[in-house]
This record gives sequence, C-alpha cells and structure tokens, in this order.
Amino acid sequence: VRIHEVGEFGLIDRLAARLRHAPNGGNTGVVVGIGDDTAVLRYQPDHDIVATTDALVEGVHFREDTITYHNLGFKAMAASISDIAAMGGVPLHGLISIAIPSRMQVETLEEVYDGVAEMCNLFGCTVVGGDIVKTDGPLLINIALLGAVQRTKALLRSTAQVGDVVFVTGPLGGSAAGLALQCEHTDLVLEQSVREDLLRFHERPIPQVLAGQLLVQSDACTSCNDISDGLANELHEIASASGVSIRIQEEQIPIHPSVLQFSHRIGHNPYEWALYGGEDYQLVGTVRKHQLEIVQTLFREKSLPFYVIGEVTNPGSDVSIVSGRSTVPLEKRGYHHFR
Amino acid sequence: VRIHEVGEFGLIDRLAARLRHAPNGGNTGVVVGIGDDTAVLRYQPDHDIVATTDALVEGVHFREDTITYHNLGFKAMAASISDIAAMGGVPLHGLISIAIPSRMQVETLEEVYDGVAEMCNLFGCTVVGGDIVKTDGPLLINIALLGAVQRTKALLRSTAQVGDVVFVTGPLGGSAAGLALQCEHTDLVLEQSVREDLLRFHERPIPQVLAGQLLVQSDACTSCNDISDGLANELHEIASASGVSIRIQEEQIPIHPSVLQFSHRIGHNPYEWALYGGEDYQLVGTVRKHQLEIVQTLFREKSLPFYVIGEVTNPGSDVSIVSGRSTVPLEKRGYHHFR
Repeated sequence: VRIHEVGEFGLIDRLAARLRHAPNGGNTGVVVGIGDDTAVLRYQPDHDIVATTDALVEGVHFREDTITYHNLGFKAMAASISDIAAMGGVPLHGLISIAIPSRMQVETLEEVYDGVAEMCNLFGCTVVGGDIVKTDGPLLINIALLGAVQRTKALLRSTAQVGDVVFVTGPLGGSAAGLALQCEHTDLVLEQSVREDLLRFHERPIPQVLAGQLLVQSDACTSCNDISDGLANELHEIASASGVSIRIQEEQIPIHPSVLQFSHRIGHNPYEWALYGGEDYQLVGTVRKHQLEIVQTLFREKSLPFYVIGEVTNPGSDVSIVSGRSTVPLEKRGYHHFR
Repeated sequence: VRIHEVGEFGLIDRLAARLRHAPNGGNTGVVVGIGDDTAVLRYQPDHDIVATTDALVEGVHFREDTITYHNLGFKAMAASISDIAAMGGVPLHGLISIAIPSRMQVETLEEVYDGVAEMCNLFGCTVVGGDIVKTDGPLLINIALLGAVQRTKALLRSTAQVGDVVFVTGPLGGSAAGLALQCEHTDLVLEQSVREDLLRFHERPIPQVLAGQLLVQSDACTSCNDISDGLANELHEIASASGVSIRIQEEQIPIHPSVLQFSHRIGHNPYEWALYGGEDYQLVGTVRKHQLEIVQTLFREKSLPFYVIGEVTNPGSDVSIVSGRSTVPLEKRGYHHFR
C-alpha cells in the first residue's frame, strides 16, 4: 500500500498501532502518550532526566542492502538507548520523527516501527510521540529519547582522573566486521554461525543499559561513553573532556572469536575495526583503581563481561596505544560526517 | 565556507556557539548541556514534563524563497514551543537534529541557529543537545522540546465538555495570507505596514506560552490545541478526542485588519485562510461557561486578547460553522501531508 493511499492520519494510526504493545514495564511515567499536542510524563523526584537525539539518514548511515527495515528500527532505537546507558540512565520515553520518501510502502514503515517496538520492549521504554513528514530526499529517522538517572549520579565523560583504569564492557569491532561482510565479502564462504554473529553485531546491537546501571551503583565509575564512533574516538573524547592522558593495551581489547576468524580469512586487522569502526554500542570509561574489584564483582554477579584495557596516566589530552613493544599515539579518527 | 572545510566537530562548535547566549532565564534545570552523550536535566517535583517533536523539510514545509534562514530557525523553534504552550507548559529544553545538504554554507546554518537562539531567548529555553548529519536530500530540521507543566494540570484536547464556550487567543489566517503574498502576489503594491504585518505573521509567529499559563491558572480551561494546521482541523481534533459537537460563528473569528485589507485586494475569502491555512500558532480551546469571566479578566489583566467564537453544543464528534444565516458542517481539512 502506498503512503498517499492511507493519508497522514491513516499512516499515524497504523504506525502507532505497532508501538502499543509494551509488556515489559512499558508506560512507566506516561501520563499522556501519543495523541495530544505533547506527551505528558512524570519522573521520580530523586531522578534527573537524561535526554538525547539521533538522526539516521539512508545512504549516509544505512543502506537498504546492508540492513533490513525491521533491524533499522531496532538499531535506531538501540543507538539512542545506548546514549542513555552511557550516562548510567534507564531509557523511558521516545519521540520518533520520520521523513518518508513517497515511493515507500506503508508495510515497509510498519517493519521499521516493529523493530523500534522490539527494542523498546527489551528495555521497557515507550514511544510517546512523534512526527511523520514527507520528503523528496532519503528516508530519515530521528529518535529523541528521555531516561532517568539517580539524581547527581549521571556518568559524564569529563571526570576521568589520573590513576583510574580504563574499561570496556564487551567485544569490539563486530559491527564494522558485519558491515564489511555485507558490503565487500557477500560471497565469502563462512561457517553459518560466524556469518550470523557478524550480521547480528552489525544489525542488532544491544545497548548496555544494565552495565551502566552497575557502574552507577558501584560509585566507582569516574567517566563513561558509549562506543558509537569507534573506541579511538570515544577515548579521545574522554581524554579531551577530562584533561587527562590515556594509554591502552592493544592486546587487551576484546575481539569476538567470529570477528577474529573473519578477519583472518580476509586478511584484515581486527583492531582497525575495534578502534575506528563504531556502532558497537559497548561502554568505555574509567573506574578508580582501588574500587576496581567492587566493579568486577558487580559485573560477575550479573554475568556481564568487563575488560580492563588501560589506564589514565597523567594530566593531558592525548591517547596512546601499546602495540607489541611499541607505544604509539592513537589517531583521533572514527566515523565522522563531512570528512 | 563549505561544510566539509570545517569538519563535523568544527561545525558543531560553530553552531553550538550561536546557542550559548541565554540572558532570559536560560539554563533553568540544565545540569549538563551540549557536549556529553546526553543532556542531564532537573525538573521540579511538582511539575510534569511535556515533550514534543517536530520536523520541517525544505520543499515541503518551507522554501528558500518564502522565508529567510534566520526566520526558519525562529519559526521551527516557535512551532515546538507552541505545542508546549497548548498544554499550558513552559518550554525549557530543546534537542535539535539537522540534516544538511553538502551544498550548504556554514554561514547559512549559523543564520538558522541564530533564529533558533532568538526564539529560545524570548521564552527562556535552552538547546541542550542535538545531532548534525549530512543528507543527499533536502535540509531537514527536527526539534524535540521538553517543558514543565504543573503536575496534573496539562491542558488536553480530550476533555471538552458540553456547555463549554470555545475560544481563540488571537487573529487567524495571517500566516497563510503572508505565504500567499510571498508565493502568488509578490508584485502587488501594498501599504508597507500591511506587507510587513503579513510577512511577520508568516515568518515570525509568536507562540502563546503566557496564554497557556493563564488558562492553567484559571482552572477553567477544559481543552486546548495550538493552531498549527488551521482552525478547522484543530476543532475537529478536540471534537473527536472529547466526543463532543462544536459550533462556531464565522463572524466571531478574529482576522487582523492587514489580512482583511490584503484579502479584499486579491479577492480571497480571509476565513478560508483562518480555517484551513495553519501555522498561526494561536491557541484554541474550551472553557467552562460559568468561569468565562474569570478567564477574560486574567487575559485582560495581562493585555492579552481572548475571543469567544462558539460553543460545545452536545455529545458527538462534529464541527459546524454559522455563516450568515446558514449553519453548515465545517470540513475536516487543513495542511496534511500525503493528501
């Protein structure tokens, strides 16, 4: 069905219907949801609000041949939830704007919204409003997302301290590896499980909300970012915002076995993906060294991985990496627009 | 200067700089603004949060030849503030996403952000975050905006009651008249003051935040919408959401003298603009008849206009208009996409 056949209000009704099922703590704090001039939301007085917005554009951030529309919705919402997770927050209320080329089918948009709903349901958050507009350009999805964090406890990127250890919450480079598989090596024969892993890493990333919660709970975390633009870029952001120098060990960066296997097959350095690939949506940050065991215990109790990959060495604003016997500056690049 | 010459971070710095001046109550509730994974915001415990999102697309919602880039930013923010006003809320925290065609100049974008900043400063709200992405398509601006409203006092569209009177807070049709002047009658000789009025109505609408506040304060308002898609559409939304029938009087719809003068010159019915034009950003709603004088007194004390234009006649979901001696159904149309 073409979009003009159902009209703007018909389309709103059909898409809003995909968002209505919220079995898992959905509708927390929603006084008024979709259907008035604004949503009306109620937050606990002992919480601050964390708020983020992210836009994804077809042809820039995704292509029809590298992700399904369902997973596009899933991943768009994951990207915004990941920002909330990086602050130690719980995602609660989303606002989705979508700019739609007239060629699109209503059913395709429903797939996108089903993916959004699937991700929302994983974390108990609710879409409370949006805007649907047409465009002569590419499909664009913008998700603004609000969440709650314990008052004064938000994890910033500007508060890392000399002496802290640097951590990440999971294997890196998987999303870039999956994209490389989709774009450049579609015909490569791979074990089915390896292929599935790589595609999942790229299309269905899981934001680290629980890890962010544990970091807040530990009271040991001094800084945190989510890895949306590659580990190198995130470390540079922390170093620059905190006024510290960071040194990491290449060999301690976790890489998933399927990513390693694929990288060996195609002769690509997997650390390149981890450092500069982006969209892994793990967390990177710093914890006080004397409280490291507290954090490790909390993560172990929840069966969540936690990797120490380096340390904050001194005041400054640079990042270096120990690779074999040499220590070299880590380039400040990642996935940037307009470069 | 072309966008690729300054890079993504250079562009963010330059645009964020335009938003930093907030003389008028700015930064209320901002714990962390632009520069981390998310903003961190603190609301008063006796307030609910109102949240809205609006996207504007070049070629669909605006054209370079009908509005300046400064006024585009001004109006984009006005549209979002107007949604907050319609709930009786105070606008506080904005998140701006912008998708930029590569042909655009940095200076042009700075004009847009100056316009956003001007509108923010009028109402003491602050831009706390955003996303800047490139696009192969048209310029797109999305503003998600949060505000505060007294807990349980938000003005809904679903709670109009039979017996209420219907009001609007100012003259209508001005925005559509200004657009008609820009698009179809650029060479028409008009008094300078009339021309300026019409262009101002179209390019620089002022959201009715104070009026929304007074309506909350009065405790007499039973429903409210902002007029973004034309009076007819907004009345139908209230009628449908509240399950009531509404009858308005054409001759009581306020039309600005400059709009009347222009309409006579070009032989156009000004009520057509008021009913179906949109983007006037006045408020329309209902108040209890026995409390009408309380509301009128509040508005008079603040020198704000307040016009009674009709009444809620009975249960139902339709809207009619008395025009001369005849009463006719009011068409449910306005500015809709995909029609």
